[in-house]
Amino acid sequence: MKKGLAVVLASGGLDSCVTVAVAHQSHDLALLHLNYGQRTEQRELHAFHAIADFYQAPRRLVVSLEHLSFIGGSSLTDRSIPVSEADLVGRSIPTSYVPFRNANMLAVAVSWAEVLGANAVFIGAVEEDSSGYPDCRKEFFDAFSRVVAAGTKPSTRIAIITPVIALRKADIVRQGVALGAPLHLTWSCYQREDLACGVCDSCALRLRGFQQAGVVDPLPYAQKPSYVNA
Amino acid sequence: MKKGLAVVLASGGLDSCVTVAVAHQSHDLALLHLNYGQRTEQRELHAFHAIADFYQAPRRLVVSLEHLSFIGGSSLTDRSIPVSEADLVGRSIPTSYVPFRNANMLAVAVSWAEVLGANAVFIGAVEEDSSGYPDCRKEFFDAFSRVVAAGTKPSTRIAIITPVIALRKADIVRQGVALGAPLHLTWSCYQREDLACGVCDSCALRLRGFQQAGVVDPLPYAQKPSYVNA
Repeated sequence: MKKGLAVVLASGGLDSCVTVAVAHQSHDLALLHLNYGQRTEQRELHAFHAIADFYQAPRRLVVSLEHLSFIGGSSLTDRSIPVSEADLVGRSIPTSYVPFRNANMLAVAVSWAEVLGANAVFIGAVEEDSSGYPDCRKEFFDAFSRVVAAGTKPSTRIAIITPVIALRKADIVRQGVALGAPLHLTWSCYQREDLACGVCDSCALRLRGFQQAGVVDPLPYAQKPSYVNA
Repeated sequence: MKKGLAVVLASGGLDSCVTVAVAHQSHDLALLHLNYGQRTEQRELHAFHAIADFYQAPRRLVVSLEHLSFIGGSSLTDRSIPVSEADLVGRSIPTSYVPFRNANMLAVAVSWAEVLGANAVFIGAVEEDSSGYPDCRKEFFDAFSRVVAAGTKPSTRIAIITPVIALRKADIVRQGVALGAPLHLTWSCYQREDLACGVCDSCALRLRGFQQAGVVDPLPYAQKPSYVNA
């Protein structure tokens, strides 16, 4: 017996795929994908629909937030800014940071949730491995929950749920495997669409996570860092 | 001497025009207009550029949030829902309520402000005359300010400023006149683009405001409620 309907933000990546798997245990799914002019937009959209097909999700919405691209400020959307290579130790904000991206995404999700009568919005943000994006922190989501309570109809009750926020990447991989999530259908690379590059922030975090979980990443890579066993 | 740059949300309506006038006193202007599939989108965009020209604002951004239209739920964007006539006494949420609209708008504004290095976002929301939109209340903007602090870079300081939130419509008209705001260039009607209808929520509030301020509304109307002197 499901607890009602949930809007789940699904990029097509590993973290959001596991988030969909968690949401699927308790809620009927309404899957939301947001394009924002990122370099790998088409590949991510393909992964989104593959994951949605896997879960037989009838409610899907794809929204363009292309303003995040022409506002600029990020290597994800502005091709004049190079994608920084992974800095898994440092605390600097990487060039892939899109200013206030998660607030834009959650605002769309809550609008849709209020219209659908959904009682939850799930988002696969990760705090520890987030490489310093300020809008991936629990503090941000707690503050956003208060905005939802203040800014929707009195009868609306929408919880913002971040099921993987406190997990390390290896734990996300393990949870995905435990829940039977279709990790082979996901896409994480920020840089390429044919083969994952293996060296951008996102690839490096993913590969290290699979490595630490003792699971072989099912995706092919153009190259792998030396610490990853083939 | 200006205090820096401000992003000002400018719909082309009365409240946001006076908000631009207030912001202009203290800040350099970056004017942001958001289309969201509302019935009077083209007329509002025309008013936006006329007001921006009046203030000689070099920085302008027009963003489409068309998902607010196809998500639906509002008479402003869904032509199958009739625009409710004014209920200036009741406390019910009118059919023109677009779910969580102001959160979507503020999210765009803050993204742009962070990229520009602006230190303020001005929005012309009005609490008392807002006919019960939950995302027009001071409580909502206070909560959103905390989201901005939590979700932007540590070096970013962006204040959310609502200069007309506590004013009644008549006071907004008076302030606009006092600041020399181009009220003749504004557009408020939710229903028509040729002549203001005079009977929708927005027209009724506007006409009553001018009436109470003792100022003749410079716009032509298709009809006026009986309480308005010609």
